[in-house]
Amino acid sequence: MEDAQANETGMRMGENTIFIGRKPTMNYVLAAVTQFNSGASEVALKARGNSISKAVDVKEILINRFMPDVKERSIRTSSEELVNEDGTKSKVSAIHIVLGK
Amino acid sequence: MEDAQANETGMRMGENTIFIGRKPTMNYVLAAVTQFNSGASEVALKARGNSISKAVDVKEILINRFMPDVKERSIRTSSEELVNEDGTKSKVSAIHIVLGK
Repeated sequence: MEDAQANETGMRMGENTIFIGRKPTMNYVLAAVTQFNSGASEVALKARGNSISKAVDVKEILINRFMPDVKERSIRTSSEELVNEDGTKSKVSAIHIVLGK
Repeated sequence: MEDAQANETGMRMGENTIFIGRKPTMNYVLAAVTQFNSGASEVALKARGNSISKAVDVKEILINRFMPDVKERSIRTSSEELVNEDGTKSKVSAIHIVLGK
């Protein structure tokens, strides 16, 4: 699926979703600005584990510094199950922030 | 104000607010269970910076493993200004999760 491939900023995207990972915070802020400026009316930020804090940073920086007309539509948290390399399972928290304008 | 003092589990509390910091996640889960079991109908989790992820973990573990009757009432994020030791200012993201039953 082409829209799930990594783009030139290194983020995987699908249906205007930005997956927050280990890259610098500003990469993700730029990705969100780019999506809104390309005509998206809604952009979602998804993160798991320690990246949850970075997803909140992305939202705050985007709205406070770059796009004050963007509003939060929803914030949901969830618990996801991961299978470790040794076959055991771990639970990890996740966040899903939907922004719109 | 007595309700803002550290309690025996080491968390500062005021008006049923638990400030999530550097202690192990389960300390905060236990603090929330204790507050609900002491009759609170609402408990708030507050965290800043990298502790935001831990606040989400506390919410998910509390609801999924210990108190399934507790529901999320609201999640808000914000940006707070800190003054560094050298007098410069930094912005830090914060999260405020309100749980109720």
